[in-house]
Amino acid sequence: MQALVLEQAEKITLRDIDMPLVVGVRDVKIKIHTVGICGSDVHYFKHGKIGPFAVEAPMVLGHEASGVVAEVGAEVTHLAVGDRVCMEPGVPQFDSPATMRGLYNLDPAVRFWATPPIHGCLTPYVVHPAAFTFKLPDNVSFGEGAIVEPLAIGLQAAKKAAIKPGDVAVVIGAGTIGAMTALAALAGGCSRVILADLVPEKLALFADNAAVTTLDVRQASLFDTVRELTQGWGADIVFEASGSMRAYDGIIDLLCPNGCLVLVGMPPDKVPFDIVAIQAKEARIESVFRYANIFPRAIALLASGKIDVKPFISRTFDFADGVRAFEEAAKGHPHDVKIQIELAGE
Amino acid sequence: MQALVLEQAEKITLRDIDMPLVVGVRDVKIKIHTVGICGSDVHYFKHGKIGPFAVEAPMVLGHEASGVVAEVGAEVTHLAVGDRVCMEPGVPQFDSPATMRGLYNLDPAVRFWATPPIHGCLTPYVVHPAAFTFKLPDNVSFGEGAIVEPLAIGLQAAKKAAIKPGDVAVVIGAGTIGAMTALAALAGGCSRVILADLVPEKLALFADNAAVTTLDVRQASLFDTVRELTQGWGADIVFEASGSMRAYDGIIDLLCPNGCLVLVGMPPDKVPFDIVAIQAKEARIESVFRYANIFPRAIALLASGKIDVKPFISRTFDFADGVRAFEEAAKGHPHDVKIQIELAGE
Amino acid sequence: MQALVLEQAEKITLRDIDMPLVVGVRDVKIKIHTVGICGSDVHYFKHGKIGPFAVEAPMVLGHEASGVVAEVGAEVTHLAVGDRVCMEPGVPQFDSPATMRGLYNLDPAVRFWATPPIHGCLTPYVVHPAAFTFKLPDNVSFGEGAIVEPLAIGLQAAKKAAIKPGDVAVVIGAGTIGAMTALAALAGGCSRVILADLVPEKLALFADNAAVTTLDVRQASLFDTVRELTQGWGADIVFEASGSMRAYDGIIDLLCPNGCLVLVGMPPDKVPFDIVAIQAKEARIESVFRYANIFPRAIALLASGKIDVKPFISRTFDFADGVRAFEEAAKGHPHDVKIQIELAGE
Amino acid sequence: MQALVLEQAEKITLRDIDMPLVVGVRDVKIKIHTVGICGSDVHYFKHGKIGPFAVEAPMVLGHEASGVVAEVGAEVTHLAVGDRVCMEPGVPQFDSPATMRGLYNLDPAVRFWATPPIHGCLTPYVVHPAAFTFKLPDNVSFGEGAIVEPLAIGLQAAKKAAIKPGDVAVVIGAGTIGAMTALAALAGGCSRVILADLVPEKLALFADNAAVTTLDVRQASLFDTVRELTQGWGADIVFEASGSMRAYDGIIDLLCPNGCLVLVGMPPDKVPFDIVAIQAKEARIESVFRYANIFPRAIALLASGKIDVKPFISRTFDFADGVRAFEEAAKGHPHDVKIQIELAGE
Repeated sequence: MQALVLEQAEKITLRDIDMPLVVGVRDVKIKIHTVGICGSDVHYFKHGKIGPFAVEAPMVLGHEASGVVAEVGAEVTHLAVGDRVCMEPGVPQFDSPATMRGLYNLDPAVRFWATPPIHGCLTPYVVHPAAFTFKLPDNVSFGEGAIVEPLAIGLQAAKKAAIKPGDVAVVIGAGTIGAMTALAALAGGCSRVILADLVPEKLALFADNAAVTTLDVRQASLFDTVRELTQGWGADIVFEASGSMRAYDGIIDLLCPNGCLVLVGMPPDKVPFDIVAIQAKEARIESVFRYANIFPRAIALLASGKIDVKPFISRTFDFADGVRAFEEAAKGHPHDVKIQIELAGE
Repeated sequence: MQALVLEQAEKITLRDIDMPLVVGVRDVKIKIHTVGICGSDVHYFKHGKIGPFAVEAPMVLGHEASGVVAEVGAEVTHLAVGDRVCMEPGVPQFDSPATMRGLYNLDPAVRFWATPPIHGCLTPYVVHPAAFTFKLPDNVSFGEGAIVEPLAIGLQAAKKAAIKPGDVAVVIGAGTIGAMTALAALAGGCSRVILADLVPEKLALFADNAAVTTLDVRQASLFDTVRELTQGWGADIVFEASGSMRAYDGIIDLLCPNGCLVLVGMPPDKVPFDIVAIQAKEARIESVFRYANIFPRAIALLASGKIDVKPFISRTFDFADGVRAFEEAAKGHPHDVKIQIELAGE
Repeated sequence: MQALVLEQAEKITLRDIDMPLVVGVRDVKIKIHTVGICGSDVHYFKHGKIGPFAVEAPMVLGHEASGVVAEVGAEVTHLAVGDRVCMEPGVPQFDSPATMRGLYNLDPAVRFWATPPIHGCLTPYVVHPAAFTFKLPDNVSFGEGAIVEPLAIGLQAAKKAAIKPGDVAVVIGAGTIGAMTALAALAGGCSRVILADLVPEKLALFADNAAVTTLDVRQASLFDTVRELTQGWGADIVFEASGSMRAYDGIIDLLCPNGCLVLVGMPPDKVPFDIVAIQAKEARIESVFRYANIFPRAIALLASGKIDVKPFISRTFDFADGVRAFEEAAKGHPHDVKIQIELAGE
Repeated sequence: MQALVLEQAEKITLRDIDMPLVVGVRDVKIKIHTVGICGSDVHYFKHGKIGPFAVEAPMVLGHEASGVVAEVGAEVTHLAVGDRVCMEPGVPQFDSPATMRGLYNLDPAVRFWATPPIHGCLTPYVVHPAAFTFKLPDNVSFGEGAIVEPLAIGLQAAKKAAIKPGDVAVVIGAGTIGAMTALAALAGGCSRVILADLVPEKLALFADNAAVTTLDVRQASLFDTVRELTQGWGADIVFEASGSMRAYDGIIDLLCPNGCLVLVGMPPDKVPFDIVAIQAKEARIESVFRYANIFPRAIALLASGKIDVKPFISRTFDFADGVRAFEEAAKGHPHDVKIQIELAGE
């Protein structure tokens, strides 16, 4: 079976690879339709590793996927052959302490697509647990289905924030994750999102959204904007979604009393925290590691029209052009939010 | 000063009445612009009492109000003469145990406009605590400002539900409170609201909202609809906003495991609850008594466009026609959601 | 293998029965030491059914058990042969939607010991998932281990209440579940429990606990007692653990503003609820169905001495006298809180 | 009236000072009985300032106080002359946005005893809002009443942690605040507290508490101890109550998945936080600034015997020896947890 294989840092090939396709009783086999390219895929492509996770053997890339059910295991009842679906890429040990507490994303046994040494899904067929395979409504496209994964991160952040209706949120960073977080915060109950970045092209994608105030941080002060828009009270929630060290300067000052900071982005180094400033606000800090029990929520929000991700799917490549898709993604064009690869015709 | 005075059951007059207008240091004086007629106003009009609250002396009606600041007390800093505002009608004892716990709506000392023996605001000028007077943004009209009060009840219900992003909610009842609750549930994070009523005219107001599934309960089964729209899982939240006894039949069956029932409507009698059915779902039940700390949230959601109440303001009468406005409200036309009275020109 | 078998209503025999003992890779085999008799066991004994669950074939009784690990499956790492353990009796489908949300107790696929048609554990050996088998510290006896199950119900109730440190709780009912709930409420953060019953012998078991105010409801008014002990504010939490219909009369009046009623007991019929009274308090109602992720918490509280269940283990019978143990349990002596059966010597 | 006056850094005198004693309608006048010396009092004594708060004029010290009601304002109903009471020292603006949200401790207008330029209570009589004056039960001594203030900080930390029954907590630091936090965590629902410090005398005060594991961090690894006592899962909660920079090394590693770090101590400088480590655990971080609505809870826990603070009242001085009491407190003897001053005979 063909696959987009990361052979080592900086080298991807489209070639045959041997992958098992045994369908267990609670599994389904899926014909892959669309796969999005994630920042982590690009990072493995460029550097061959992320933190402790090193690519030491050829690995199939891709973990943001939609497709069509091709076969169902004997005990599967909620899916049928032909169903359009998207897949949650990280599978835990189902009887682990973390899973039984509803925290399966934190189970150390999670096997996650395209995190070494686990193969990803940029290949025509995969086998996956039915419990992690979700039916797409008719009005949700394969492209939207394949963007559910990054949207789920934004929604996990919104869930962790415990938004109260009408909260005002700041989202720092308008990259893919920041954009998804902004959409999730609004859909999740915020009255307004103040979205800060320094790339005008990314902010421009929110120009038509009356509930989003975009802010080019090279042009204006985020602190002043928050003060003004909240009559001096401060933001109820700040989502840090840039991963930039500098985003943390004065970040607590943006919060209202008892406000919440949600750590979404992953800064490269330790960040100095002003504990006394946190205490003076009695701030709460929440953090996000992927997501748990979010895919059905993301799909429901797409289906009802409360979240529209279509403007954020920037470009689509054929599977045959997959290597070029990664090369383009690696360039980081300011206009690209999400690049996807279609395998439909394979 | 002129006022719409409920003299006794079934008798309202527009006449002069003596009302004190002393502006304390933390008060403001407001020139009233618009006042909505609430179901409770109509109930006092028809019956002269609600439960233990009996109209035993002439009482000015009205508690859903917007206007313009005409005078500010010496210690008031967040408002200025000329500000367009709306007012929260129930004022607690500020140092009471309930208030200090953030539950000022539950303080037994609350003085609430047009709840006997406290006069309401259907009169050209009122004095009110600045802390309960909220500035309206330029893009929020006086009419919208005067509907913040019933919207606040819907938002209190949404806050109590602790909506998670993407929840599916049922709202039973599409009267004013049900309609406001449906808007609040969607703005507060739900992906979809299934709105049930038996008056097609009320449901029709949601016809253009893709995230609302309206259901005429005389035509279709609410239980079946919920099952179908949630793939058998059940609704995350059910808001009972009709006050109908019959709404409680099988209401727990609509919920998903660990789902939440929010009691908004006020049924006339005790309701039989199936405790074992509640337990089998480990359901949570929340209840709503007016609202606390909600007005700023309601205004923010109107200003950002996340909630549009304009279709629900059915008719507007001049102050001079105020008695007729009440007579119309008392008729309960199916097309009337909210009738308002304007005092602007007085 | 010998077992205590409920042949039909009113007929228990100690006899051989065929039970499979295949140890799967994630299972353990346990030599049973002690099994408590639960009210549900007694109910099946007397009536042959509970609600829709009817005993239609001979069924081994018992679900409150401790023992010693006799064999471990190949993938089990946290247990070893010889470990003293207790077992959680209800096993869900591990990849179900409810389980993945941390609500495995609500999974419709749960197989629960001694709930027809599933055999219980009153037999010398059982095979059980390792994930539902918990090691007992040295200072927790087999008898205490076998009472973890009813204690877990009390702790689930305490967890649902979301006790804040220093809350005052009422517990209605001092039977096994009420007693366990009272212990759980205190261990879980309450400053005081007001425990109400009409059986003095049951209340007497709490005579030495300074933080428990016992109340014989035939002698004194619960409402007055709560008012007095809370300076008129009301109880933060009321746990209804009697299952009595009459317990619901005025139950909301016991609560403080925004207080919480927890439904633990199972009344035989529907209970009339005063919705308006609930709303006037903005009361929250929580409910309990068994427990999830509680066994380790119960064991930790026994091990640290924060909960002492020893006074509640009333009598212990040998396995050979098991039929008589059930007969005694069925009599409902006021002094009996928990009767246990020991299989140790078998 | 006599008072213990901090004239400037390092200079306290017992002398007459003019203080207003006008009793407003919602105030009470209190004859002070006992006042504890807080670390902040000592800090002002030694350094003349804490952060931005500088002693620029003579200031009466003391904010941990109990006494007897000597006069009540006209509207005060819950207190009477002769009542034994303790007082909450920080009084907010009662109609502020923070107060109405239940967050009065975060109101910028708070006037707090012995925080410049507000006088404290080390003087025979004070006038205080009745709403912040709490009656002591007969079995709570004046000394215990005067330690309610630091205990309230521990309980605020416990409340913020949202302890679930049976949680395991680490408390870092066994000084006054650490000790109070450990007591609060246990009373608030923890099964066990692992208390870490490097002063054996402070740890020794917990030697008789079976639910507390004390740890001299110079002798043993906190990480290893937590792993062992939690079977590798980690602590549910870590309370940082030392204010030491070094306490933060590896602090996240002590937590279980989704565990909670509570920031109680105030480190002198910014602390480097490993965001990615926080995210990998999906840790939650809460912070504490004094307390709100805690005094009644603290008193209830003392009265019921769930918290015993008596061992932590180390020494008591007469008011006449007040200067020496401060000199002793400033020495920081390892055996001193709380030093108090009695004015009873004045």
